[in-house]
Amino acid sequence: MTNTAMTERNPAEQIIIDGTTRLFAIIGDPIAQVKSPRVLNPRFVATGMDAVMIPVNVRPDHFEATVRGLMAIGNLDGIVVTVPYKSRILPLIDDVLPMAQQVGAANALRREPDGRWCGDMFDGRGLVRGLGKADVRLAGRRVMLIGAGGAGSAVAVALADAGIAALTIFDVDADKATALADRARSAYPACAVRAGAVDLAGHDTLINATPIGMAPGDGLPAPIDGLSADTMVVDVIIKPEVTPLLAASRARGCRTFNGRIMLEGQADELAAFFGAGMN
Amino acid sequence: MTNTAMTERNPAEQIIIDGTTRLFAIIGDPIAQVKSPRVLNPRFVATGMDAVMIPVNVRPDHFEATVRGLMAIGNLDGIVVTVPYKSRILPLIDDVLPMAQQVGAANALRREPDGRWCGDMFDGRGLVRGLGKADVRLAGRRVMLIGAGGAGSAVAVALADAGIAALTIFDVDADKATALADRARSAYPACAVRAGAVDLAGHDTLINATPIGMAPGDGLPAPIDGLSADTMVVDVIIKPEVTPLLAASRARGCRTFNGRIMLEGQADELAAFFGAGMN
Repeated sequence: MTNTAMTERNPAEQIIIDGTTRLFAIIGDPIAQVKSPRVLNPRFVATGMDAVMIPVNVRPDHFEATVRGLMAIGNLDGIVVTVPYKSRILPLIDDVLPMAQQVGAANALRREPDGRWCGDMFDGRGLVRGLGKADVRLAGRRVMLIGAGGAGSAVAVALADAGIAALTIFDVDADKATALADRARSAYPACAVRAGAVDLAGHDTLINATPIGMAPGDGLPAPIDGLSADTMVVDVIIKPEVTPLLAASRARGCRTFNGRIMLEGQADELAAFFGAGMN
Repeated sequence: MTNTAMTERNPAEQIIIDGTTRLFAIIGDPIAQVKSPRVLNPRFVATGMDAVMIPVNVRPDHFEATVRGLMAIGNLDGIVVTVPYKSRILPLIDDVLPMAQQVGAANALRREPDGRWCGDMFDGRGLVRGLGKADVRLAGRRVMLIGAGGAGSAVAVALADAGIAALTIFDVDADKATALADRARSAYPACAVRAGAVDLAGHDTLINATPIGMAPGDGLPAPIDGLSADTMVVDVIIKPEVTPLLAASRARGCRTFNGRIMLEGQADELAAFFGAGMN
């Protein structure tokens, strides 16, 4: 089931907002670009939940007051967090779940039955779930990851959690790569995590978690000279659908995935977290 | 056009919530009973506004923080205020418009282009507009009003504003009736406003603005012995549709209106205030 199919006008799946409707907010600044309401509202409808996700533009200079105000709303049950607040949200969460702690950021909060707010990080798990639905087995893989920023951190921790055997992390900021490698290694000692240059030898998976490839004229995020056809290549970028990295990888015969697989996996994760899971 | 017709499943009038959608909140405690989202959302859709009204349960002990949080949201443009906050909201409004000042309560706030919040009171105006659409001419009427509480206050001021000639206000709490009469008289010196007992002589219109008639077993809000067939009778109660007062009035041949006329008039007023007016 694609997002497009879910948002088509099926009269049986209309949003009807009533006094009884429960609220879920997605917060960010700016907010106009967010896709979660379009993706999650049809899932609420389809699962029979009287709930709606709304976009909420939280201004940086009113961040804490606005978020605390949202959390005080009696019929607001969850919050999705996007740029630039995924780290800034942490001090406002009562219970930061382990993956959010390891990543140092949360992208979803939920009010528990006892009134406490727990927060977790689903960005990397979204990729794991998306690949799982595409029948990609992650356990045992040896991954070369480019980018140790927000997306890269979430992906690194989620991959280690999913049981990959080895992870090499590259970032133009070497200290950032080292710090992330240290965090992932201490949380998942069974995974051989290290920071290092982009070197495809000894890796069966290449993941780009940088924005390089989004802008017109962008090239590759790193040289991929040694890329062989049996390496799987993932780019977390959604637009364009085929980045220079994916084009070059396809030319070499690699199996490739773009950011849509992560987006759809995230939607599944968030829906499940908010009680609208469908599988 | 009835509310029912507007909320029927017309595919062309579906709510679609996106990152660009503007928010309007209705705040109250409890909130499950509110009808504004069902009434106003189809109007937003019909006028092509990318906007949605959501129910927001504001808890009394978090009132100010929650409302200030809502007002800080970048894409929230308006707030409808219901029980028990119509008076409590006043100190949070930058510009309290004249009718809200006279009533001592506001039921709608709007963010102006300069960022200030203005608040106004549309409860009584809703009745005036509803009666106007039913071709009832109010100018010159002599009205007997039962009830000087929240609804009664809004109705009294709006009727005086609409040009009625005389207004007698009764409340079981005589001081409340007197205080309301004083306020209405000083704001509208052309209207002969006084507090007094329910006496239908010299009045051509009887309005009940108390809740008496809502509960099973309720009787009349006041004796109506002298009620003649040429007196128009309005009951602000919505459920039941025919209160004991309306039943007794119809038995005497009076023209009657129930609270639906006020509700629909309010919806027109609120839609216009929020930029979704259709006439």
